[in-house]
Amino acid sequence: MNFTLRVLGTASAKPVPDRHQSAQVLSVHGRFFLIDCGEAVQRQLLRYRVPMMKIDSIFLSHVHGDHLFGLFPLLSTMGLQARTAPLNIYAPANFGPILKFFLSYFGEGLAFEIRHVALDMKAPEVVYKTKSVEISAFPLDHKIDTFGFLFREKEPPFNVRKECIPEYGLTLTEIGTLKRGEDVVREDGTVIPAAVAAYKPYVPRSYAYCSDTRSFPELAEWVKGVTLLYHEATYPEEFADQARQRHHSTAAQAARCALEAGAGKLLLGHFSSRLKDLSPLLTEAQAIFPDTVLLSDGDLFDLPLIKH
Amino acid sequence: MNFTLRVLGTASAKPVPDRHQSAQVLSVHGRFFLIDCGEAVQRQLLRYRVPMMKIDSIFLSHVHGDHLFGLFPLLSTMGLQARTAPLNIYAPANFGPILKFFLSYFGEGLAFEIRHVALDMKAPEVVYKTKSVEISAFPLDHKIDTFGFLFREKEPPFNVRKECIPEYGLTLTEIGTLKRGEDVVREDGTVIPAAVAAYKPYVPRSYAYCSDTRSFPELAEWVKGVTLLYHEATYPEEFADQARQRHHSTAAQAARCALEAGAGKLLLGHFSSRLKDLSPLLTEAQAIFPDTVLLSDGDLFDLPLIKH
Repeated sequence: MNFTLRVLGTASAKPVPDRHQSAQVLSVHGRFFLIDCGEAVQRQLLRYRVPMMKIDSIFLSHVHGDHLFGLFPLLSTMGLQARTAPLNIYAPANFGPILKFFLSYFGEGLAFEIRHVALDMKAPEVVYKTKSVEISAFPLDHKIDTFGFLFREKEPPFNVRKECIPEYGLTLTEIGTLKRGEDVVREDGTVIPAAVAAYKPYVPRSYAYCSDTRSFPELAEWVKGVTLLYHEATYPEEFADQARQRHHSTAAQAARCALEAGAGKLLLGHFSSRLKDLSPLLTEAQAIFPDTVLLSDGDLFDLPLIKH
Repeated sequence: MNFTLRVLGTASAKPVPDRHQSAQVLSVHGRFFLIDCGEAVQRQLLRYRVPMMKIDSIFLSHVHGDHLFGLFPLLSTMGLQARTAPLNIYAPANFGPILKFFLSYFGEGLAFEIRHVALDMKAPEVVYKTKSVEISAFPLDHKIDTFGFLFREKEPPFNVRKECIPEYGLTLTEIGTLKRGEDVVREDGTVIPAAVAAYKPYVPRSYAYCSDTRSFPELAEWVKGVTLLYHEATYPEEFADQARQRHHSTAAQAARCALEAGAGKLLLGHFSSRLKDLSPLLTEAQAIFPDTVLLSDGDLFDLPLIKH
């Protein structure tokens, strides 16, 4: 029942010696979701012992090289490792010809199907759903079509409080009713409220990935109440004009988004290679949203199960 | 007047944590030639402080991903760094559509021209020539069109021995004659032999890059007398059948090539990821050609100027 984020790259377009370009892996209940594929993502997966073969699906925010160039080598290696499980890649529509090129020139011998799920929504839409997790994509505001992703543990079903079973002499049918969150109403008029006899075993955890993007008002609404929010912070507020012009965000803008969204914690990354000192980003963000972290490659966030 | 090889990657197709895929930089008299572009080559260039912007040209042996996937990110970064100098890429003809794809999807804003010099020779041919260096390409025997490269310092012009100028009372014309390596014959019949009064200041150094390839008889002839020979050694001799079938070489085959070519030193790389212990490769190669080195990422070979 884990919910774990491993950060693989935190640089923006120009690589720097101690930071790789954008890539992260979120693991939810043992499933691995790869988010963006900056160059050398497969080396970073090796380094942090993420089981490459267990990657369930890939989420590509946009087709700029610094989020994408690690994909071809990764797919090739998956082929060499004899992957057979189909792989879904959730990416903007303009990823289509890029995948086609890869398959034409480097796809020989791949024994697994690669399916491109084209994203083109104007507001959040669920794109992936299992019993335990639901993933939605939403548009960001960048130079080219770009999408953010929200990974949510699903609401767990209600559990019936063990002590209530003998106390009320609950029947199997009544237990079923309580598990659906409904009150039991007996023929004699007795009511056993779900609020008393049942409970949610945990609060669903969630993670939102927002890179690359200008700051825009709807975003906070779309990631409302998220446990962990990653928001790009290419520049400090001092370069707000440049951020706007280049369709990026400042650390302060990311922090305002986290505050408005009521996020649990804010993670900042995608730092401009021009910044020699990142501390101003942290200072300006924490002044608005104290629980902010400046990411480094390799950072791990293992979110504990939040019990009710 | 340097002649320096920096090894950036020594793995074969499957990446391993401590080895990158094929890439090397040869620097000759201050010019940088990049040979193959395994993934993350730009990170390796950063790591070993090779000045990316001074890369004169790129030599791609073939279009398998493990020799190529570092190219797109590298070209993108050169663009971000505002390169304007044209860049020649010497590569097989089938690199053409790959470059075209890159330029269509990721070439926006590149302020330098990328020229593909298509290789299709059946025997060694000079493809690059300056005052001080000459580079030839020659076919290898791999699954797809693949080429090796031979980098040679050019023969320097003769120098006239300083002490001979007063000794023989050499005129400027006579000095010119000796610098062309010709004997001076005076009107009175006196002969001043070039062999006595002139000398070559140094022996040209050379480097040959041979990856990926099956062993084949002409190769040793084509790299005859090379100072430093890189030859792939994917497998030990024990796997000779597999090497042949997969169009690769064993360490012993590489060593026989070095021996027949009369090479100065043999460098082995492109090791199969299946080999946990590489020492058998060294043992079998050194039994045939003692001056053999098993390469590691980062290895540096700074060839001294060999004076006559």
